[in-house]
Amino acid sequence: MQVEPRVTVWNEFHHERYRPESAAVYPHGIHVAIRDGLVAHGFADVRTATLDEPEHGLTQAVLDATDVLVWWGHVRHDDVADSVVERVKRRVWAGMGLVVLHSGHYSKIFRALTGTPSDVTIWNEDGERERIVVVSPGHPIAAGLGRFFEIEMEESYAEPMEVPNPTDLIFVSWFQGGEVFRSGCTYTRGRGRIFYFRPGHETFPTYFIPEVRRVIANGVRWAAPEASRV
Amino acid sequence: MQVEPRVTVWNEFHHERYRPESAAVYPHGIHVAIRDGLVAHGFADVRTATLDEPEHGLTQAVLDATDVLVWWGHVRHDDVADSVVERVKRRVWAGMGLVVLHSGHYSKIFRALTGTPSDVTIWNEDGERERIVVVSPGHPIAAGLGRFFEIEMEESYAEPMEVPNPTDLIFVSWFQGGEVFRSGCTYTRGRGRIFYFRPGHETFPTYFIPEVRRVIANGVRWAAPEASRV
Amino acid sequence: MQVEPRVTVWNEFHHERYRPESAAVYPHGIHVAIRDGLVAHGFADVRTATLDEPEHGLTQAVLDATDVLVWWGHVRHDDVADSVVERVKRRVWAGMGLVVLHSGHYSKIFRALTGTPSDVTIWNEDGERERIVVVSPGHPIAAGLGRFFEIEMEESYAEPMEVPNPTDLIFVSWFQGGEVFRSGCTYTRGRGRIFYFRPGHETFPTYFIPEVRRVIANGVRWAAPEASRV
Amino acid sequence: MQVEPRVTVWNEFHHERYRPESAAVYPHGIHVAIRDGLVAHGFADVRTATLDEPEHGLTQAVLDATDVLVWWGHVRHDDVADSVVERVKRRVWAGMGLVVLHSGHYSKIFRALTGTPSDVTIWNEDGERERIVVVSPGHPIAAGLGRFFEIEMEESYAEPMEVPNPTDLIFVSWFQGGEVFRSGCTYTRGRGRIFYFRPGHETFPTYFIPEVRRVIANGVRWAAPEASRV
Repeated sequence: MQVEPRVTVWNEFHHERYRPESAAVYPHGIHVAIRDGLVAHGFADVRTATLDEPEHGLTQAVLDATDVLVWWGHVRHDDVADSVVERVKRRVWAGMGLVVLHSGHYSKIFRALTGTPSDVTIWNEDGERERIVVVSPGHPIAAGLGRFFEIEMEESYAEPMEVPNPTDLIFVSWFQGGEVFRSGCTYTRGRGRIFYFRPGHETFPTYFIPEVRRVIANGVRWAAPEASRV
Repeated sequence: MQVEPRVTVWNEFHHERYRPESAAVYPHGIHVAIRDGLVAHGFADVRTATLDEPEHGLTQAVLDATDVLVWWGHVRHDDVADSVVERVKRRVWAGMGLVVLHSGHYSKIFRALTGTPSDVTIWNEDGERERIVVVSPGHPIAAGLGRFFEIEMEESYAEPMEVPNPTDLIFVSWFQGGEVFRSGCTYTRGRGRIFYFRPGHETFPTYFIPEVRRVIANGVRWAAPEASRV
Repeated sequence: MQVEPRVTVWNEFHHERYRPESAAVYPHGIHVAIRDGLVAHGFADVRTATLDEPEHGLTQAVLDATDVLVWWGHVRHDDVADSVVERVKRRVWAGMGLVVLHSGHYSKIFRALTGTPSDVTIWNEDGERERIVVVSPGHPIAAGLGRFFEIEMEESYAEPMEVPNPTDLIFVSWFQGGEVFRSGCTYTRGRGRIFYFRPGHETFPTYFIPEVRRVIANGVRWAAPEASRV
Repeated sequence: MQVEPRVTVWNEFHHERYRPESAAVYPHGIHVAIRDGLVAHGFADVRTATLDEPEHGLTQAVLDATDVLVWWGHVRHDDVADSVVERVKRRVWAGMGLVVLHSGHYSKIFRALTGTPSDVTIWNEDGERERIVVVSPGHPIAAGLGRFFEIEMEESYAEPMEVPNPTDLIFVSWFQGGEVFRSGCTYTRGRGRIFYFRPGHETFPTYFIPEVRRVIANGVRWAAPEASRV
């Protein structure tokens, strides 16, 4: 029988403690907002982990009890210990799902799994309107969405994002200021499924938006190992 | 030794004869504008063919002497004889390159080769600004381009376009009105290479724009069979 | 809630009626053997359809009530009406799964969906040992299998098979006589998932082999539309 | 104008110095045999580099003057300095081609670029017959080959090889002993093209075989950056 996937939401948890604009939006941290969204979508087993915990909260025991890991990082990628990155990588190879959010594209773990720079060299934090357009409507990660949804204010990213061609491209973002971005990309590495999803600047309430929460929930479900995919 | 690819530019050649706005922009037909662009890019052997010629100008002899076929069609897809579609398809399978432009996504030949509806259900002919963003800067079809280029007025298309995942996604378009589109897509079928390139509404002077001409030239070069890829 | 997928097993049902060696192995037809395998794997709603029924048993009503269609054909591909092929194709585009078996690679429906010749030009019906090796052990279609399984006597196919690159290559066959073959290939067309699985010559009891039955059951589950994937 | 690609053939050069069976076959080292094969195929600028040279012979200056790097390693992967691996990786991202041979699948550089274990857990050094079957006959790496070619005695590898799905699968090997292997795989990382080619055990004269030399020459040509692809 299939069982509910066990999810760990990881956050560097830096801006929300040191930057008032971020604390105002995410007083308990981005990880808590994401966790709450998953719980609201019916996930029963969702824990959190943050950078400053011992071993970043990602001990071998925690990873062994995690079916899908959600990753948010931005300014402290370099503070993540290589030994923990290696541990996460091996769990992904063994089948753990990984959902990488926003600036996590440049995290050590995402770069180690893609084998590319995974860089985005142009961005704009002014808060433009972002329209996230579904290009693969039949993909389970797009389930329950319309043709597109909008985020009133977000940081924009510009192409090229230096990643390998995704297996499936689920979303492309349109930004008011003239940019586009491949905002939903899937990969497989070893037995593990990886989903990159773009939105989520730390000063905008993105992770409270219903469609964003739905996409993350869909992504966690899709990335879960077969035995726990529900 | 490599030899110069022999190119045939096919056009249904309807609007330019019957619609004044089109005739004003393309008095000799879209095919002639495309041919002139290829000649300007150094292709020495470029002929044209149109729908109302016998066998649509695509006899077996013409196809056998064609290394890359460029295709423009819009309102008369259904008037293309199935026997000619079959003939073109078999030449692609045998190695002829195919560059499909604009509304050619819905041509019989492109649909037969993709195996999908290849449909675009939302479009807007008002003439929006289109920004064509390079997402695969290392691909030969993007050679010589900057990070993006713009077309002042174009018809817009909206996703989803119902095609298989392209092997490489070269361009994504941003439209002023809020849409995005996968504007440069590559496929392989049998030994033949296929490149779909979006721009080219019949009432806008798109095929005179230097960057558009460059992309079509790059696409023809890329799609040519190995022996004639120069 | 997810519901059980409704499966239709289609067979041209020719050899088993006219060729004694086939009738000896499959007295009720290949379709019945496949159906029995699916029922043994817990599928509750499995019907059959054959070429000589009106509309080949594939009326619009039947297709509308089918979540996954399994296809076996060999010598009578040309007798399948184009109108039925078109109907099946549109159902796949709309989300129906399709599992194509053995010489079904050359069926009208598979060729229409791949856009390629889908041909295999060398084969040997002498009955060699086939070893089916799992190259994507993490894929749900390989669930429950070991590193490989063997079929004591099968027809062999030789590469190249003229198909587009599969999204995932699940199995590669090794044949005693020196050939290899991409025996498990997945594709997506529109919203429909397609799985090609090689084994199944009409004079060998392939569809009674437990591992073969398991693969077909896995394939049907994988190809089912999201709402009925169990 | 296109110019001739500058090639560097790298070898750990260990077996040939310390193992008589290897020295007997490759008295000057595997790298020299590979270089000679490339020179025979018309490459004019081919140098070699080996592990025990300072910086393994791969200084920044050497890499900057290299368009395609060929890599052979086996028992001393761990002796390659991480700083050199990082340097090679960045050159690949910037456009340098990489041809990885045989047990190089487990080299630090290939693993860093694939993002996977890239492991092969079963092999046999007894010297079986290997038949290398072309599955993508239209690919430039298969140019000039027949449907397959054979190597009388080679080490065999067994699937699964833990790599990402290749962009193109060019060759599949059949081994006398019952195994198959994806022997020719292509990838792109950043602007760099990567080709993995399986054969080449250190005690068999594989790199003197005409077809093997042709494949390596084709692979180098294919992997060269656009400006030097000839």
